[in-house]
Amino acid sequence: MSITTESSGVSISFTSIGHVENAFDTETSAETLRSAISRIVINPLLKDGLTGLESGGKVLVVFSFHRSEGYELLQHPRGDHTKPKRGVFALHSPHRPNPIGVTVAEILSVKENTLEVSGLDALNGTPVLDLKSA
Amino acid sequence: MSITTESSGVSISFTSIGHVENAFDTETSAETLRSAISRIVINPLLKDGLTGLESGGKVLVVFSFHRSEGYELLQHPRGDHTKPKRGVFALHSPHRPNPIGVTVAEILSVKENTLEVSGLDALNGTPVLDLKSA
Repeated sequence: MSITTESSGVSISFTSIGHVENAFDTETSAETLRSAISRIVINPLLKDGLTGLESGGKVLVVFSFHRSEGYELLQHPRGDHTKPKRGVFALHSPHRPNPIGVTVAEILSVKENTLEVSGLDALNGTPVLDLKSA
Repeated sequence: MSITTESSGVSISFTSIGHVENAFDTETSAETLRSAISRIVINPLLKDGLTGLESGGKVLVVFSFHRSEGYELLQHPRGDHTKPKRGVFALHSPHRPNPIGVTVAEILSVKENTLEVSGLDALNGTPVLDLKSA
């Protein structure tokens, strides 16, 4: 992590700890992604950090919406124009000032540096920033 | 957000959307922090993004453990040496490869660009990266 101060805020850099692998390379609904199985592949040097995560448990996944570009402060929930606009901080839209996703996924298996999970709404290739027991 | 690729992973930079204000400047237990009242002050330019967050509701706060330095992949839970070590990704320790905190806080009030919350385990001056309804 490195931190620098700018007029608009503090700039903070992270290095991904791993990435997501699944069958979805292009924009896909969160529902479809969550019902599929994904693999979270961690940097092999960090493998010991997974100790204690077990199949049947849950894990909170912090990731980068790496395909997201731009945002509006007020958005229709899920893009549904029949619903009034809300603030982006009251929504889970990937289009946000810092495109960070946070999802609790179910652990199906843990093998070496790879977690198999369901319930994760992230595309193939998504950089993973952190994992925490949930 | 900017993304660059390194051998160990992808480097991703974010700019904080705001910061935490409370009475705690030095290391303080999560329990004490959560029982206190904190203010989350957002960049005034992003104020409209709070629309829809209301007192009585909950908000998921993504923040940077800006005082955290270094980490071990295996740690005793809460530093309790009577408990066996677990992997950092199975813990909520602030000492982690990417020192990102994720906490659900209760909203006490929303005024202009400031949220008053309880239940947040972040020190005074903590950079806030994202907010989501919870």
